[in-house]
Amino acid sequence: MTTPQLIEQIRLKKSFLCIGLDVDLSKIPEHLLKEEDPIFAFNKAIIDATHQLCVAYKPNTAFYEAYGLKGWKSLERTIQYLNQKHPEIFTIADAKRGDIGNTSSMYAKAFFEDLGFDSVTVAPYMGKDSVEPFLEFKEKHTILLALTSNEGAFDFQTKTIDGKEVYKHVLETSKTWKNSENLMYVVGATKAEYLADIRSIIPNSFLLVPGVGAQGGNLQDVCKYGMNNSVGLLINSSRGIIYASNGKDFAEVSAEKARELQQEMATILDVY
Amino acid sequence: MTTPQLIEQIRLKKSFLCIGLDVDLSKIPEHLLKEEDPIFAFNKAIIDATHQLCVAYKPNTAFYEAYGLKGWKSLERTIQYLNQKHPEIFTIADAKRGDIGNTSSMYAKAFFEDLGFDSVTVAPYMGKDSVEPFLEFKEKHTILLALTSNEGAFDFQTKTIDGKEVYKHVLETSKTWKNSENLMYVVGATKAEYLADIRSIIPNSFLLVPGVGAQGGNLQDVCKYGMNNSVGLLINSSRGIIYASNGKDFAEVSAEKARELQQEMATILDVY
Repeated sequence: MTTPQLIEQIRLKKSFLCIGLDVDLSKIPEHLLKEEDPIFAFNKAIIDATHQLCVAYKPNTAFYEAYGLKGWKSLERTIQYLNQKHPEIFTIADAKRGDIGNTSSMYAKAFFEDLGFDSVTVAPYMGKDSVEPFLEFKEKHTILLALTSNEGAFDFQTKTIDGKEVYKHVLETSKTWKNSENLMYVVGATKAEYLADIRSIIPNSFLLVPGVGAQGGNLQDVCKYGMNNSVGLLINSSRGIIYASNGKDFAEVSAEKARELQQEMATILDVY
Repeated sequence: MTTPQLIEQIRLKKSFLCIGLDVDLSKIPEHLLKEEDPIFAFNKAIIDATHQLCVAYKPNTAFYEAYGLKGWKSLERTIQYLNQKHPEIFTIADAKRGDIGNTSSMYAKAFFEDLGFDSVTVAPYMGKDSVEPFLEFKEKHTILLALTSNEGAFDFQTKTIDGKEVYKHVLETSKTWKNSENLMYVVGATKAEYLADIRSIIPNSFLLVPGVGAQGGNLQDVCKYGMNNSVGLLINSSRGIIYASNGKDFAEVSAEKARELQQEMATILDVY
């Protein structure tokens, strides 16, 4: 999917919501555990109920790997279902990968070509030659971790090098990489006040913002500081939507929660 | 496996060699492609031929993920084979994972419990709460990326914060984390001269050193600066051993290459 196509979907749906498909078998409704593939059954129900309210889905690969072969199969089925049934939806493999050059190429091939994701999250620690192999893929997007929403973000990301925080060095340096137009960035919502600075470095890039809701971020603040002319934001919510109920009505309740966020987003889009 | 058990194996085998099982179907001998599971067949042959010459095997998960479900199955079969046939061998899942707390727990469970690896490589960018979930596992080891052997290592890892390189901050900070005794570190061999400084920060930890051979590092230099009283080194070689021949004799040739390194190590161990 191209960036203009993503922006078109945002305008059409009046939503820049991304739903995190982080499926934990201990949290899903009990009646689903009888299904042959409970993880996929859960995802399918959530997707069927919410796909008009969001523009992206983001399975975190850890939750699938934790179930071994079965989990990997559920991930395959989920992305196949999305690509066949809803090709207009932007898909994110939240994998936080990153390795030496030729090995990063293997990861890129796995997520972009074999699984068919539109994008993958990548860690910056190993630098340019660990990220550029991902950037080579046309109409695919590499979402680089810049400033994450967890407490540990303050261990290294916000430390200063020559008076500038590490995450800002990551932003600036990444702009010089080949095919950097294929970059997006993870920026945690718990630090909305940092978004103005971030926008001065990467005014045009899309930001994937986790941590609205469950992790305490505020949607209004994120939009105030982070939105650009093309919206430029994907706001992720996982637990707050997919685990809103664990009864038989889980899909409808997830849609209600998604609709609340979507409507808040529609109001914001009308103002900006 | 405990660290004393690993050290015992090193003394017994006079080897601190780790063999990287980075299996690329385009590089393995053609006759193996007829096998039902060519990746496992290749690994099994390499393991059978080299297990007395090395103390560790390190599959890089990217190479397995690149083949989807089949690849994941090959990884499972490989680690099962190692754990059943050679429980004295230290196993490393080179996965370079790292995510927000509860998600890191999922990864830790996947690699330590379900797959049964002794250790996993982890990226430090997301800080303390992304790494500590791995450190909770008893007799399991978390190998933190400190200074990698690729060119991109100079993008962020060697930049200085308050006069000290980022990778040194990673080393120092990680020592303060809970269960930090379960940490080992990735330190690339292309920067052997940095090892003296690194040893002053983490004198007792094991270092996993990639990049000897193919990537240009020198074994003598690495040992000179990096060895401690418990040896404290695992030297990884992948391509130089496993792809030394792509004929029917590939396993024997890989054993020859492994033996060359093992003998060099035996000589070094006799001196130190």
